[in-house]
Amino acid sequence: MIVVMKQGATKSQIANVTARIEQWGCRVHLSEGEERTIIGVIGNGRPLDRGPIERMTGVERTVPILRPFKLASREFHPRDTVVSVNGVKVGDQQMVVMAGPCAVESRDQLLETARAIEDAGAQVLRGGAFKPRTSPYSFQGLGEKGLRLLAEAREETGLPVVTEVMEPQLVPLVTTYADILQVGARNMQNYALLHAVGEAQRPVLLKRGMMSTVEELLMAAEYILSHGNDRVILCERGIRTFEQYTRNTLDISAVPLLKQLSHLPVVVDPSHATGKWELVEPVSRAAVAAGADGLIIEVHPHPEKALSDGAQSLKPARFAALMRGLRPVAEAVGRTL
Amino acid sequence: MIVVMKQGATKSQIANVTARIEQWGCRVHLSEGEERTIIGVIGNGRPLDRGPIERMTGVERTVPILRPFKLASREFHPRDTVVSVNGVKVGDQQMVVMAGPCAVESRDQLLETARAIEDAGAQVLRGGAFKPRTSPYSFQGLGEKGLRLLAEAREETGLPVVTEVMEPQLVPLVTTYADILQVGARNMQNYALLHAVGEAQRPVLLKRGMMSTVEELLMAAEYILSHGNDRVILCERGIRTFEQYTRNTLDISAVPLLKQLSHLPVVVDPSHATGKWELVEPVSRAAVAAGADGLIIEVHPHPEKALSDGAQSLKPARFAALMRGLRPVAEAVGRTL
Amino acid sequence: MIVVMKQGATKSQIANVTARIEQWGCRVHLSEGEERTIIGVIGNGRPLDRGPIERMTGVERTVPILRPFKLASREFHPRDTVVSVNGVKVGDQQMVVMAGPCAVESRDQLLETARAIEDAGAQVLRGGAFKPRTSPYSFQGLGEKGLRLLAEAREETGLPVVTEVMEPQLVPLVTTYADILQVGARNMQNYALLHAVGEAQRPVLLKRGMMSTVEELLMAAEYILSHGNDRVILCERGIRTFEQYTRNTLDISAVPLLKQLSHLPVVVDPSHATGKWELVEPVSRAAVAAGADGLIIEVHPHPEKALSDGAQSLKPARFAALMRGLRPVAEAVGRTL
Amino acid sequence: MIVVMKQGATKSQIANVTARIEQWGCRVHLSEGEERTIIGVIGNGRPLDRGPIERMTGVERTVPILRPFKLASREFHPRDTVVSVNGVKVGDQQMVVMAGPCAVESRDQLLETARAIEDAGAQVLRGGAFKPRTSPYSFQGLGEKGLRLLAEAREETGLPVVTEVMEPQLVPLVTTYADILQVGARNMQNYALLHAVGEAQRPVLLKRGMMSTVEELLMAAEYILSHGNDRVILCERGIRTFEQYTRNTLDISAVPLLKQLSHLPVVVDPSHATGKWELVEPVSRAAVAAGADGLIIEVHPHPEKALSDGAQSLKPARFAALMRGLRPVAEAVGRTL
Repeated sequence: MIVVMKQGATKSQIANVTARIEQWGCRVHLSEGEERTIIGVIGNGRPLDRGPIERMTGVERTVPILRPFKLASREFHPRDTVVSVNGVKVGDQQMVVMAGPCAVESRDQLLETARAIEDAGAQVLRGGAFKPRTSPYSFQGLGEKGLRLLAEAREETGLPVVTEVMEPQLVPLVTTYADILQVGARNMQNYALLHAVGEAQRPVLLKRGMMSTVEELLMAAEYILSHGNDRVILCERGIRTFEQYTRNTLDISAVPLLKQLSHLPVVVDPSHATGKWELVEPVSRAAVAAGADGLIIEVHPHPEKALSDGAQSLKPARFAALMRGLRPVAEAVGRTL
Repeated sequence: MIVVMKQGATKSQIANVTARIEQWGCRVHLSEGEERTIIGVIGNGRPLDRGPIERMTGVERTVPILRPFKLASREFHPRDTVVSVNGVKVGDQQMVVMAGPCAVESRDQLLETARAIEDAGAQVLRGGAFKPRTSPYSFQGLGEKGLRLLAEAREETGLPVVTEVMEPQLVPLVTTYADILQVGARNMQNYALLHAVGEAQRPVLLKRGMMSTVEELLMAAEYILSHGNDRVILCERGIRTFEQYTRNTLDISAVPLLKQLSHLPVVVDPSHATGKWELVEPVSRAAVAAGADGLIIEVHPHPEKALSDGAQSLKPARFAALMRGLRPVAEAVGRTL
Repeated sequence: MIVVMKQGATKSQIANVTARIEQWGCRVHLSEGEERTIIGVIGNGRPLDRGPIERMTGVERTVPILRPFKLASREFHPRDTVVSVNGVKVGDQQMVVMAGPCAVESRDQLLETARAIEDAGAQVLRGGAFKPRTSPYSFQGLGEKGLRLLAEAREETGLPVVTEVMEPQLVPLVTTYADILQVGARNMQNYALLHAVGEAQRPVLLKRGMMSTVEELLMAAEYILSHGNDRVILCERGIRTFEQYTRNTLDISAVPLLKQLSHLPVVVDPSHATGKWELVEPVSRAAVAAGADGLIIEVHPHPEKALSDGAQSLKPARFAALMRGLRPVAEAVGRTL
Repeated sequence: MIVVMKQGATKSQIANVTARIEQWGCRVHLSEGEERTIIGVIGNGRPLDRGPIERMTGVERTVPILRPFKLASREFHPRDTVVSVNGVKVGDQQMVVMAGPCAVESRDQLLETARAIEDAGAQVLRGGAFKPRTSPYSFQGLGEKGLRLLAEAREETGLPVVTEVMEPQLVPLVTTYADILQVGARNMQNYALLHAVGEAQRPVLLKRGMMSTVEELLMAAEYILSHGNDRVILCERGIRTFEQYTRNTLDISAVPLLKQLSHLPVVVDPSHATGKWELVEPVSRAAVAAGADGLIIEVHPHPEKALSDGAQSLKPARFAALMRGLRPVAEAVGRTL
């Protein structure tokens, strides 16, 4: 941390700041310029809280030097983390495609989709049983019945299942049925939920909040990791910007950036990012080319009848075509699919 | 709802859309232009879900005509709602100032602050017992001990207490101690929490998410209202933008806009909106002038020692000066303080 | 400037950076932490260009310590600048309201408006002769004929005139007619234009770009100041965000922030910021309460017939009511109007 | 266009709106719902200006149905436009890479770069002679001397040259030397400049403004097209968001979206979008995979000595490696490079 003192800060203000820092067991380097005095803080190995210093009299601002995340950082853990789920490895040389309906609606819908995506080469089945919906008047999901249908689809296809959990107290229930617990974008900073999935014995798919920075995403991962669960998969799903043609703006640069900053696997959700099925295929190719470890894609046998988010869902035939088109792109960047 | 068909949509596609709409008990108006056919939907009084139509073949997009919120809307409920809390009325001619520390840290800190803000004219005591923090390494609040201190401060000063609740299962506990339940910005779309406070017998202070539109804020209020709790206070606390000098960007226009669209009272949080104590006073004046029904302001006896967000906290003397400065502004817009 | 070296930067990389900095006539302070070496640069009084250092091998990033603007900064020039325009003083104790139509459309429209705003107490007449329009098919302004009408309105009312200039080569023409040259939001970083108005002998009203930071606004002012024109009036007119109910999001905190960082006067444009006439009045009050030195407001005798931006224009009677309502707010914050 | 009347709009208000629309030679469809009356406008083939209707009494809002751009739209011109520049075809099956330094600094720097990028397979040389810089104290480019060096590099390598023009009156000068005129992001809505390049006999590379929507980019293209120049190349170069790790946020979805909405070729600038050379390669691959027709990339022989934007420039060897890595990606999506 660097402390920038105000123009005209007094010697005693500087001395107070210095004393406070040394109390923490840190060392101090003073640098007196003509217009400002700068205090360099040489840390004690633990993350520092800039707040208390920032409020001291005579301090203009502080500047962080180290990243605030540690367990999630590549500096701390240089090798790629590979998350294994029932034999599927996320973060390995082979890419992983997760696919399925936005919401589980019925046995027929789910089984038809599960078989179709398995045929097309997907390795994980996605489907929402509990749905976060902006309106209290919209379909909220089938709940536990949806979880049972997901488990049944897994029995039949062998595909592991990822599904969203929205409340800490539902983590035990969802863990009974699901292979990967999804934390949705709206809950990325629901700390009670991060705590609960951090203590669960299940991999976690952590979606970036629609207005969260890359650093905040990694801090959310840090919460989960700090509770003892090191099987975290990061998911870029688009951020909110002023552009309104697409539902969100996919931050494609976040993919290589996250791979640089962190050892955790990164998957991309082109369906929520764009909100339009006709953009899902080119954006999926872009994600693979940028180095994503996987994709999570909405597929619905009859999107025009879907109870949620059908506008961004592919039909099975289109999904199969997308998978065929992705393979050469994956190979072009040294991956398999 | 208006349905815009694609250029070249066939007669049978138009017929299918029409049939679907009529199934819902709605009527249809066709308008055939040279380049597009437009289908006007005349509703049945209930909110329509645009999704199923949007996914039908031949449909380009749909356009909502009515607002998606109802219970929260002024059209539905033209008179201002006044929320009463232990004799304090929020949304009435007299403005209400809520003040106190970001986090409850100790009995001394809280009581000293509570007495100071009461002397200065504040009517509600705020203070966090459970704190949402970006980093797992930051102070997370005193928990129930903090709630007990708040209750003690209420005993001593008579000020009702507002404090944040972060998890549905903590709603009963927090309700035992608090007079107003605060839903924080990060939890504005935590639907399980909205459900829980919707069933609680307490007023709710609902903060706008930093990534949420005015419409989404009103939809979150709609969740609470639809669960039977009609004592909701809206809070504008700044949104996230590209500007980095301030912590957030206070959306001052949202104050008169919310008052137009809704009957619920609106308060403003200048402390979180700016993140800088020296901006709190001018921004508070602006909020009052724009028509806010109240303010929620961070005050700490020793901000340089605060365990969270001290940089945006006022000292008691400064807060008292702010209150004195606000009174003529309130009077200038026909309110009292 | 602070230079943060990468983890594991070599001694020779550090020596290279140090040598480069010393070449500039600056001094260096080394601070070797356990994870990073930090190099503090003690400047030579001139702004430093961080770029060349940032690209040197072994450098992770640089951190600016001083603000990049100088002539525009309050540190450099502690006293408020008051810009005088034909006897009207912008930045003084008395607030200044500029009003008039978005676009000059006809002699009748302009004179009717000019008389009405003068009666209501406005001190400057605004009106566009050259209009920046998103669509090539929209009305582009009357051009020089509009300038002549503005000059005629000034003759008749005595009100000085502010109007936009969009091209460097039109600065001489516009200067012939106008008392204040307006640089529009879309042109805030049109450097050729900033250069040209910097050399003109006229006050400049510089509008903040819709996606420009406060710092970029001050850098644009710096361009004008550095070309010898020190009569610059800053204008906050809303920034672009994800919120779509209003046309832009007025950054009310920018008003006190600009007053802190700079000595230049600050006016607010509530008409463009909100895009809705019914929000103009409360937002104007907020701007005054926040410490703005003035307002620029759209008024049109028949907004429903306006050729541009009528939706945000007030009728004269409404404007007169707004002015009456503003006076007590101005007095409440120690100003006159 | 659809006109939504306010709740409670009177018959005479509706009649006035209807009369106005019919004056324009358009037809009207009335749709009376329980809560709102909707007026559908059946156009006369020309773009309608919504403003005048929006301001009429009783009107709540209007909704556009047709896109406001025409010449730039694929509906109007279904076949891809291919822009030919001295034998290089932009928008054809073969992708085009433009490369070179951000700013032309010296003959040696430019020629060394030009030879290197030609060897690596680039087909167009980029380099700035006039530079838009946020600070008046930064290097502003070599001006005409830079243009002469660009022409000399073209002589030597045969590569056509793209360079930025910042002012309308410099268009003739820049046209003397350059093969493609670049309109920079800050000037995307500099209408005088769009007019001037629209009348020049040269292809135009039009960069999306950092604060501009896809629709606004297409409207800026419409300006150029409407002045008779149909050789416009669109360029996505990142938009401004809250994320600060990267300089801008590349809107990768805009690539397929622009290809859908428009017939114009689309290139991507990964250097400005990310601001970090180490992200340029993965983001370039993503752009190719998403369907871009080309790339524009900064290359500098000694980025650590560059006078502008070195942090995002690749060294020649790294650029050659990037080109090798791109070829299989291009082939994977059916293109050549």
